[in-house]
Amino acid sequence: MAGAGAAPDNGVSRFCPRFHHAVELIGRRWSGAIINAMLPGPQCFNELLVVIPGLSDRLLTERLREFESEGLVQRTVIPGPPVRVSYELTKAGKGLKPVIAALSEWAERWVEI
Amino acid sequence: MAGAGAAPDNGVSRFCPRFHHAVELIGRRWSGAIINAMLPGPQCFNELLVVIPGLSDRLLTERLREFESEGLVQRTVIPGPPVRVSYELTKAGKGLKPVIAALSEWAERWVEI
Repeated sequence: MAGAGAAPDNGVSRFCPRFHHAVELIGRRWSGAIINAMLPGPQCFNELLVVIPGLSDRLLTERLREFESEGLVQRTVIPGPPVRVSYELTKAGKGLKPVIAALSEWAERWVEI
Repeated sequence: MAGAGAAPDNGVSRFCPRFHHAVELIGRRWSGAIINAMLPGPQCFNELLVVIPGLSDRLLTERLREFESEGLVQRTVIPGPPVRVSYELTKAGKGLKPVIAALSEWAERWVEI
């Protein structure tokens, strides 16, 4: 095993900034649960609140804004009355499905609650 | 779309506490990068510090302790001198490989840095 300052033993960096960004993005508090809950299709804000117990209005708003700015979620205003706002995963957001599936499988096998 | 208080439209809860625990665990700051860096095999503390730019001693220590207490990492003291400490993913930790792979693929496709 190498000491501090040595190059990784395989000569290839095992750190990828894109991967790091992705894991920090979906790892933010409630992000995984929200994306998971959005996979079935477009949903209203309140629907998302209902299916994720313990999630607050404030945090859901914050996460949805982040997802929008990262291009994972498309926000659509549906003219009323009453005006409604629908949130839907973009192609990039839907692309997280295999990640969610792999993590669900792992959780089922290894996480004890 | 249903309003506040309504049941999810598919009648099935889309929230799983195990999944939630798993995503919060690997989503903690640097967790993904550390697990990714540990996949090749057992490593010393300093090796991990070297392959993950920007990661501090303090945070690496914190994450490794969490991983140990969650059963993802096995810590082994190798008698010296000098005494060395090696960190290795357990079977549960190695089980995250498909998750990391799926997320890497997604990041490669969708994340622009």
